[in-house]
Amino acid sequence: MAAASPGERGLAEQILAPIARELAATEALIHLKLSSDVPFIARAGEYLFESGGKRMRPALLLLCARLLDRLGDEAVTYAAVVEFIHAATLIHDDIIDHAPLRRGRRTVNAMWGSNLTVLLGDWLYTTAMRMALEHDNLAIIELFCDATLRMTEGELLVLERLGAIDLTVEEYFEIIDRKTAALFAAACAAPAAIGPAESRHADALARFGRALGISFQLVDDVLDFTASEDELGKPVLSDLREGKLTLPVLLALPRVAPAEREAIRSVLEDGGFRRTDPGRVLEMVRREGCLEEAVDAAREWGETALAALSDLPDGEARQALEAAPAYVLRRHA
Amino acid sequence: MAAASPGERGLAEQILAPIARELAATEALIHLKLSSDVPFIARAGEYLFESGGKRMRPALLLLCARLLDRLGDEAVTYAAVVEFIHAATLIHDDIIDHAPLRRGRRTVNAMWGSNLTVLLGDWLYTTAMRMALEHDNLAIIELFCDATLRMTEGELLVLERLGAIDLTVEEYFEIIDRKTAALFAAACAAPAAIGPAESRHADALARFGRALGISFQLVDDVLDFTASEDELGKPVLSDLREGKLTLPVLLALPRVAPAEREAIRSVLEDGGFRRTDPGRVLEMVRREGCLEEAVDAAREWGETALAALSDLPDGEARQALEAAPAYVLRRHA
Repeated sequence: MAAASPGERGLAEQILAPIARELAATEALIHLKLSSDVPFIARAGEYLFESGGKRMRPALLLLCARLLDRLGDEAVTYAAVVEFIHAATLIHDDIIDHAPLRRGRRTVNAMWGSNLTVLLGDWLYTTAMRMALEHDNLAIIELFCDATLRMTEGELLVLERLGAIDLTVEEYFEIIDRKTAALFAAACAAPAAIGPAESRHADALARFGRALGISFQLVDDVLDFTASEDELGKPVLSDLREGKLTLPVLLALPRVAPAEREAIRSVLEDGGFRRTDPGRVLEMVRREGCLEEAVDAAREWGETALAALSDLPDGEARQALEAAPAYVLRRHA
Repeated sequence: MAAASPGERGLAEQILAPIARELAATEALIHLKLSSDVPFIARAGEYLFESGGKRMRPALLLLCARLLDRLGDEAVTYAAVVEFIHAATLIHDDIIDHAPLRRGRRTVNAMWGSNLTVLLGDWLYTTAMRMALEHDNLAIIELFCDATLRMTEGELLVLERLGAIDLTVEEYFEIIDRKTAALFAAACAAPAAIGPAESRHADALARFGRALGISFQLVDDVLDFTASEDELGKPVLSDLREGKLTLPVLLALPRVAPAEREAIRSVLEDGGFRRTDPGRVLEMVRREGCLEEAVDAAREWGETALAALSDLPDGEARQALEAAPAYVLRRHA
């Protein structure tokens, strides 16, 4: 990640203040669980989790637990679980994308090869499920299994439609709903399954998490066009290079001239910018106003997320959650 | 698999008779679960499970359930779970080994590439855990998670020691204990967690499964030397080609002349038989009596398996389980 601006840091601190202690406990638990008698797991696992990441899913889970007054060891366990699941999907996706860089560092895959990375991902998934068992709570495991299945199926949909210039906007939203929003939703809804059944707020929290996840992914997809390589920690326009059409291009395609459409097709065909200059694609999405439209869509999903919070108990945690959509959008500004 | 000899078929029928109906139900459940709204899962999953396999782990699980008088829907679910976990490990291992063939057919990996195969494995693992949840039985999920972790760690140990000529016999047994015996043990112990707690027999069943699994893997490793390519459904001496030293070679190495040791090392270095003839390796392990010794070890583990059954309830199921070690060994004859 790029260094956060002072405003961003302030907002992040404001959001995280009510759960600072539990976030630290989550971090400690993650490192404790990575200790294994198989040396590679400890080594590559530490590398993976040291490389940063915003711990956004654990933070959301802990804030939602705080909101429901269910912050404690069990919530910390699930916060680590959701980060392990997220890490497992990331490294398996990096194998598939042959990604050399993530967050400005070499991927586990680039460091140790895809063989070890396949197994590290398997280990992380299974360890996540094993940890989720610790509090004898079946509803939680069900929640995380279902989210993991949706993510895996989402990535399979991506692969099936890779390089397809006829991908629809509906398919794009289906993909980001599965690939990103499902785990955000599970992270936010999980605390409702801690302690006595609390189905009253589970739906609202899941809706909040899902909408925030969609907003987050929309912003991420815009940043692939607008951020610098330094800020991204990987090459710009990576998605298009990898054959993935995201909303800005999907919106532009029906509006541009046939030659421009062909230029996009050539990038998909070549798996890179051999015949087309990246600047040309950027100019196209800018000229057609598609980056703004994608940011508008992210803003609307952020408002949907906010609306989902309206019936939840007021207080410090809810205020922090209410600041999350703006935080997600500020990454773009 | 090679076609079973009439004697083998007879023995298999004898073993499977008490659970024929439940094995058929397991098969139906496997195919039901493979139906997914992601087309690739249905397609590749059907291909994977159509390609045969002996359903040995489901059969053991169902026989142990029969022994404890716990045969029913729950046991059938876990029988499908154990086969899904087994299938997931197989296809992730095939990615790692770049295996073109298994059971005489192209691997999923060779058919669809490693990207889709990584995700299919993830989907199978997670679906297995999701299915295991259906009967609200936490002990079962714990059992299967732990076995999966041991298997994954076992495969990581394999990778860490791949091509190492100084692999010890102890390391070899540690590897097969994790890679193969752990899931056999879980399959056999699982029925003790169905219904009211039955810890009395759980240990004995786990010991039976583990010993049978070790015996099975020893025979498998001998077959890599003695069976024909047709019988194996893949090239002979595949293990050595892939850099894996198994018991016959491990026993031979300290006994043979330096030049022969160098010949083995050359196969490991080259990742194939470029400088050394496979016949030379075969002659070496035969001359030193190492194949017989490995079969003897398999027989001893078979006897350990038998001994573990001695305190279990007598009857049709126990008799079937008692025939399993001989069945495993007969694959070699």
